[in-house]
Order: sequence, then structure tokens, then C-alpha cells
Amino acid sequence: MENDILIHNGLLLTMEERLPVVENGAVLIRGSQIVDCGPEKELDLALVHDSNRIDAGGGVIMPGLVNCHTHVPMSMFRGLADDLPLDVWLNEHIFPAEATRLNPDSVHEWSLHSCREMLLAGTSTCCDGYFFEAQVARAMVESGIRAVAGQGVIDSPAPGVPDPTHNIQAAKTFVAQIMDLSSRITPSIFCHSPYTCSAATLVSAKQAAEDAGILFQIHAAETKNEIHMIEGLNKRSVIAYLDGLGLLNERTLLVHSVWIDDGDIEIIHKRSARVAHCPESNMKLASGIAPVPRMIDARIVVGIGTDGCASNNDQDLFSEMDMAAKLHKVACMDPCVMDARTCLAMATIEGARAIGLDREIGSIERGKQADIIIVDMKKPHMVPMYDPFSSLVYSAKSSDVSLVMVDGIIRVREGKLV
Amino acid sequence: MENDILIHNGLLLTMEERLPVVENGAVLIRGSQIVDCGPEKELDLALVHDSNRIDAGGGVIMPGLVNCHTHVPMSMFRGLADDLPLDVWLNEHIFPAEATRLNPDSVHEWSLHSCREMLLAGTSTCCDGYFFEAQVARAMVESGIRAVAGQGVIDSPAPGVPDPTHNIQAAKTFVAQIMDLSSRITPSIFCHSPYTCSAATLVSAKQAAEDAGILFQIHAAETKNEIHMIEGLNKRSVIAYLDGLGLLNERTLLVHSVWIDDGDIEIIHKRSARVAHCPESNMKLASGIAPVPRMIDARIVVGIGTDGCASNNDQDLFSEMDMAAKLHKVACMDPCVMDARTCLAMATIEGARAIGLDREIGSIERGKQADIIIVDMKKPHMVPMYDPFSSLVYSAKSSDVSLVMVDGIIRVREGKLV
Repeated sequence: MENDILIHNGLLLTMEERLPVVENGAVLIRGSQIVDCGPEKELDLALVHDSNRIDAGGGVIMPGLVNCHTHVPMSMFRGLADDLPLDVWLNEHIFPAEATRLNPDSVHEWSLHSCREMLLAGTSTCCDGYFFEAQVARAMVESGIRAVAGQGVIDSPAPGVPDPTHNIQAAKTFVAQIMDLSSRITPSIFCHSPYTCSAATLVSAKQAAEDAGILFQIHAAETKNEIHMIEGLNKRSVIAYLDGLGLLNERTLLVHSVWIDDGDIEIIHKRSARVAHCPESNMKLASGIAPVPRMIDARIVVGIGTDGCASNNDQDLFSEMDMAAKLHKVACMDPCVMDARTCLAMATIEGARAIGLDREIGSIERGKQADIIIVDMKKPHMVPMYDPFSSLVYSAKSSDVSLVMVDGIIRVREGKLV
Repeated sequence: MENDILIHNGLLLTMEERLPVVENGAVLIRGSQIVDCGPEKELDLALVHDSNRIDAGGGVIMPGLVNCHTHVPMSMFRGLADDLPLDVWLNEHIFPAEATRLNPDSVHEWSLHSCREMLLAGTSTCCDGYFFEAQVARAMVESGIRAVAGQGVIDSPAPGVPDPTHNIQAAKTFVAQIMDLSSRITPSIFCHSPYTCSAATLVSAKQAAEDAGILFQIHAAETKNEIHMIEGLNKRSVIAYLDGLGLLNERTLLVHSVWIDDGDIEIIHKRSARVAHCPESNMKLASGIAPVPRMIDARIVVGIGTDGCASNNDQDLFSEMDMAAKLHKVACMDPCVMDARTCLAMATIEGARAIGLDREIGSIERGKQADIIIVDMKKPHMVPMYDPFSSLVYSAKSSDVSLVMVDGIIRVREGKLV
């Protein structure tokens, strides 16, 4: 068709099953969708205008990255308080800053900032949870990013929800309001944690999410302290406790899942719950090391997330993949775990699966939405290239992303926001 | 003077003792040296030509980074073989590749490639060890980088030294040849390891280094296997064994030092030996986690290195600092260890100290050589900035380096090689 866009002259990593790599690959985009992809010479390109041909210049053409856990407004607190004990960091810095500085305008401003940061770094989708999430969603729409936007639920006065008895209603209102905002934005409900939400709150929030058929997110088993607290109160593990409340199914995203044992892994697997792994945040806050290789062995769907900028301090999935690969190798004393293919899958198709968007995105396939990036492979740190997966995980930097398309629309070109 | 160069309009991180930060800072350079630095308004700039004024644009002005451990020709093997068991990686991939592909020309070509990669990433000095090191040194001179270049010594046939009985003589010849090559290149002798060099070789190599007053480098206590091998043969730890041979003093750089205990730390401290920490390599090869916070507590000088591109797979000290900070926090379960100031010092002044160049480089001070970089602080992932040390370690990427000066000569401008 005459308005079709072609991305060509690159190494195509589709991130489909079995991870095929196509030399001289190309992707044909009509509107917001991928209508064909494969070797360029096999595509019917007769009608594509010259001005609609995007030359990948020999770079990698691959799906946009999926960031499975963010708190995008928190870029306003990037680097505010680092290298501190967790309680000092939270109670003396982050909580007071949130109490005084969060308002609809600041949330909107810094959400937009984060979305731009992520787009520039090759992330086309994020899964977020925070307060004033309607403002977050507005910024997401403006930025052009795709997102799951989760309204925060907590049993204490929160920004935008001063009376916690209204927290479930606020979440329901948010969901109704966001449901038809944009085809790129999917609402969600995000319970802060098992130790800041009562059992009743957790159950109501999950019920509201199920009623709407949307993702339920929760920080779970992040720190040893949380484990001690929940196990002390409930005489079972965090995961068993959440499962006992009926919270776990394939529309539940367990964020962090650091302090879990084989029994917990079995529960997560049995319920088909998803996990968001945030290695940099877990390392920087000294929370611990999640048993990700064991979860993957157990066929649990694990995506990768940056967490908020107060604990990372950026939103860069290239460094997150590299960190995940290296962290687990040394933690397991096994250089074979978390290979480059696994890490790249976590940041694309597995991430999409984790947040319930794998039918729409996460790989380059006919009929999926056109969320595509081009990665420049010519800078000195990328040369030579023996294996594109290795190069992308162990050598590439987010600054190597030259083009980002979301929903068929180019948002980054030549490394700059359009 | 009329040829003086001024770098100004930035936040000056001198990395001197107590790490002062100077707002509206400036550095005045005459020839290859820093002649003045501090608040711009306190500097005498009357004679500086407009065309010699470099505007840092509000970025950070800081010393060039010091990479304490490289094998620069190995960029030719970047990504050749990843995610493999150590013995398969070495014996089936790296050693055969070295045997067939290393020659003076390939070593020169890929050394130049690596030096360019490092300069672009803000590294102004590296400390290298490999074979055909005279070719490496030639590439270093051509690239403009500053370096310690170490000729490899090993008790088996090696590239350029087919007869291992000549390995010490080859090293001595190299040292004599390189000594006056360039003021930016300092020769060194690099013994591969305690398990590939006999006691006699180690002692002779160290003696040759001492005779020339230069740095002696050795991989030490990198893997558990090495520990078992050396302890089995010598009934003492690797460090105690090397110390017993008289190898340890302030001109000895112990690379890796992963498997060391408190007794070893005491020996290293007592002898004032230096350590090169290579977190990404140690993680990727699943070698282990060096007890760096304990070494620093014991006042051992620890620099940071990338290791060669076959085990990292890049030469980027920004990611290395970030990795070091996060790795040790989670390994110690203490978010306070390896704070941003410590990591930035390791990559600058402590690194210079580790390789014996702290009188010349590592900080911005009057009389030191003008090895200076400018880091752009305006891209979205760098905003806001509450603390420049945090921003540089936890948020900055090597691609944020806009200018690199080595020895008073600009090698990178606007992020591109000059």
C-alpha cells in the first residue's frame, strides 16, 4: 500500500519462538501493524514509496524493549539519596520527598521525562505503578510510549488518595477512566505490598482487577524484613500468603520475588503468575538476589524491570540485561546461566508475556503492533560482532539505539526524540 | 600564555583528597600540563584566546578515567564465545583463536580499535598486559591514549615468544625498547599467573621489573581452581605464596584478588601491593566476588579494570563503576558500601595510584598532566542532578562523555574522535 513503511537493510531479530535471526531482513508496517517481515527479497515491496523506506544501515532490527516495572514519576528523585541504609533512605528521604513534592503537575512532568528517557533508550513499553496514575497515563499518551498504567493502592494516606478507605474505589475510578484513553495504554491496579495492604485490601484490589480483566501488580518478597514480617504474622511465606488469598493467576505480576524458595516457585508456576525481576534495584538497595535461573527452569514467565529512579538510578534495559546476565552467573558460580538469548527474551517477548501484552507486542511477527527499534552495530564497542545476542546484551548501550517506533509511529530517529 | 587552553563553565570534580567540587570551575592547560584550576573567577585568564576556550556547557569537568586492567588486542575476540564453562571458553575458543589469529598486525589493528573505544568512553589511561606488546604500545602511541604497557610472560609457547625459555629476555628487550618511546607510555612486565609461571620465572620477572623501576602485574587469586592448585602445591594461599617469593611491593599490581581472606588482605596491605578489581569479568566468567570493601577498609589501593573484551565484553569504566557499586552492596547486603565517591575515586585517583601514575594523573591539580574529560549532564537520564558523584556512577553512560583530553591534546570532541 502506498503509505506502508519499510524498515530494511538490517539484521532482523524477531524474538519469535526459537529466536530466528534474518540477515538482510525487513519489516513492512501498515498503520500501527506489522504486515510482513523476513528476508527483504521475499517481501512484496513494489508499492512502498522511497520516502517510506527506513534504512537500518546494517544495524539490528528488533522489537522495542519492555520494561516490566517502573514508577515513572520517581525520576524527579533520581539520585536524591544514595548509598544509605534502606530505612534511612525510605523514611528520611523518599517518603518525605513524596509527601511534599508529589502533585498532579509534578507527576505529569516527570512521567513525561521518564517516558522520553525510556524511548531514547529503546524501551517502547513500560509497566508502571504509582499514585496520581491518571496523570502518569496522560504523560504516557503524550510521549507516545505504550504502557500498562497501574493505580497505586496502599492502606495509608497516599498522594491523591488521602483517605485510604477510598483506595479501592480510587483504583476502580482510575480503571474506568483510563480504559478507553488510548489503544496504547492498558489500566492496571498496583497494590504496594503485602505489608502495607491488609488482606481485605489485597482481595478487593485483585477482585477489581479481575472484574476488569486487567493486570494486578504487587511488590512481593523484596526484602528479608518483609519475609520476617509476613511470616511472623501469617506463619507462611509471602507467596503462600498471597496465594492463600487467591491473588495469584496469570494476570498477577509479582515484582521482585527475591526471597522465595522452591515451594514458592512451585506455587508461582502452578498459578501461572508472572514475575518482574529488577536486578539493579535489588542490588543497589542490597535487597538480595532473586533466584531467576531457578524460576526460568521452572518455566515461570519472568520479565525485567528497572524499578523507579530512586533506586537504580536510570531506566535503561540495556544495562539491566547486562547486569542480570552477570549477576546470576556469579551468584550461581555458573557462567552458563542467564545466557544472552534468555536475557534478551526477558526484555522483549517474555516481558510482554509478563504484563499480558504478548499477543500485541514483544516480537516482530505479522499482525503484531509495530513496536520496533534499530540498534546501531558500528561503533567501536560493538565491533566485531560474532553473535548478535551477545553483542546486544554484553556490549550494546542504550545510546546505540538509533530509531524507535511505537504503534507504527517513529518516536526516536537518529538517536533523538522526534 | 597565548597558547593556553581553558576548559570552563562546568562543575569541576578535581578528585583530589576530600573530593572538592567546584561550581563554575575551570582548568587552565599549558602544553601538556594543568597550570591552574578552581573557580573560574579566581583564575588569571586575561591571555587566553577565545579560540582556546572550551565551554563545558554546564557539564562535569573531571580527570580522565583510569582502566587498571586490559588486554587491548582481545577486542578482536569480543563476543566470540560467551555463556560457556570456563574451561570450554578458554581451551576450545580463546586459546585456539589466540594461536591462529594473533600476529603483529592483528595485535596492532585491534589495540588501536580498543584505544579508540576507551577514549570515546572517557578513559584516558589504561594498564595493559598481553603478547606482542611492542605492537600494542605502538597502537597506544598512535591513538593518543596514556598507558602502562606490560609484556606478557608465561612458561609456555606464546605469541611472539615461541620459546618460553626466552620469556624473561623478551620482556627485558621490550622494556628497553619501550622505555623512551613516548612520555605517555610506561613499560611494565606482566606475568600471566602463579599457575602458568614457575617460581623461578616469577622471581626473575619481578627482578627485571624492579631493575627498571617499573610495574609488575600478575593475575592472582582469580578463580577457586587456581586457589586449589596453588594451595595444593605450596600449602599456602596464592597471596602468601607470591609474598614468599618476594614479589609484593608497591610496584606490584595484583589483578582480580577474588579468592583472598583476611590474612591475604593483611599481607597485601603490609607490602603496599596494589589491586585491580574487574567486577564485570569476574561476574561474567563466574569467577567470584572480590572482597573489595574489606580491602578498602584495610587501606589497600584498589583500582578498577575492565579486563579484556573476551570476558566483559567492552571497555567501559562507567558501566564498571556502576557494576562495582551494585555488586558489592548486594554481596555484603549493605547498601552503604562502595558509595559513589569510592567508586569514582577507584576509577580515577586510586586507579592512578594502583598503576604508579598518581604523581602524573588521576586528579585535576596544578602540575599534573592534562588528562581531562567533560561529561554532559543534560540528557534525560542525567536529570535532575542532586549529587554529581551519584549521577556519574549510577546514571551516566560512556556515551555522555563529550570531550577527552590526554596530555593536553584533545582526542574526543562532541563525542567523536578527533
